Amino acid sequence: MARRTGRRPGNPDTRESILRAARETFAERGYEAASIRGIATSAGVDPALVHHYFGTKEQLFRACMDFPVDPAEVLPQVLAGEPAEIGERLVRFFLRVWDSPAGVAAVALMRSAVSNDWTARLLREFVTTQMIRHVLPKLTVDPADAPLRATLVASQMAGLAMVRYVLKLEPLASAPPEVVVAAVAPTSSGT
Amino acid sequence: MARRTGRRPGNPDTRESILRAARETFAERGYEAASIRGIATSAGVDPALVHHYFGTKEQLFRACMDFPVDPAEVLPQVLAGEPAEIGERLVRFFLRVWDSPAGVAAVALMRSAVSNDWTARLLREFVTTQMIRHVLPKLTVDPADAPLRATLVASQMAGLAMVRYVLKLEPLASAPPEVVVAAVAPTSSGT
Repeated sequence: MARRTGRRPGNPDTRESILRAARETFAERGYEAASIRGIATSAGVDPALVHHYFGTKEQLFRACMDFPVDPAEVLPQVLAGEPAEIGERLVRFFLRVWDSPAGVAAVALMRSAVSNDWTARLLREFVTTQMIRHVLPKLTVDPADAPLRATLVASQMAGLAMVRYVLKLEPLASAPPEVVVAAVAPTSSGT
Repeated sequence: MARRTGRRPGNPDTRESILRAARETFAERGYEAASIRGIATSAGVDPALVHHYFGTKEQLFRACMDFPVDPAEVLPQVLAGEPAEIGERLVRFFLRVWDSPAGVAAVALMRSAVSNDWTARLLREFVTTQMIRHVLPKLTVDPADAPLRATLVASQMAGLAMVRYVLKLEPLASAPPEVVVAAVAPTSSGT
């Protein structure tokens, strides 16, 4: 439940209360049904304060997640250019993030999602509304198949993360990025 | 560290001490370097007792893992028949296990491996020595590529588990098994 919050706009307790209320609301009700008003009520603050701190509902959602990259920044890069090479760009980008210092945050998020149903629900909402939804219109497959294809690509990335970065199965764990791109991208291309 | 153990052959404390020592040893030294003698010493029992309770080193390792299926029983079924259809049989079998009551144990093992480095190491040793090693000779790809292909297939299965059973991303989470087999198997076939 929401704690009583302080009065100063920059109060870290207030920020934290809003984020906590937002995580609960997004996980419980889903992204669509969640509202800034409801989150503000649950945090015991004015909705204007939520907007002031975090901007739009989408921006608030991203602030909730500690996601290692901002999809709004990254997806346009992955989706630009030849549709047939989306798979290749996606895998290359994915490896760059996980091989970088941000990979630590990515492993932490994966740990949290696997061990905690709330984080799993949040991550599911996040991947669906902030990533897959933006990717679907760009896919060249039959629109009826696109949602399944998109979740299959998500599963390929999740599996790569599990085996290369968490379980560290060799030789995949130490394979150079270009070898992994060449091996994985054909199956996620044109999807 | 090993606790003092009782004297009766069927003593559950003794069994538990041996299993604990075995998990530590397999995770720390790897399957190859681990020995029944070393595990017995660490558990404070006679090596003959370890053999008596658990049989061979391989059987002891399987007893350590709470793995939802016995690879020694399952792999021959997956590997029998047309090599080109190994991928299809593997995915079908994988879904049957995860969709069954054993799926609960599988999720638990995945949770444990993601949150605990020791379990991750154990699982890595297990997948490498009890599964991948037995699969490699059956693959029809260039033997130089086989280990990487095998770990890529492992990553596909791990990703399917993550997205279908842990994150539950739709429509993959509710897709009928045959739809998933048709979508995933082509990429793991002939590997």
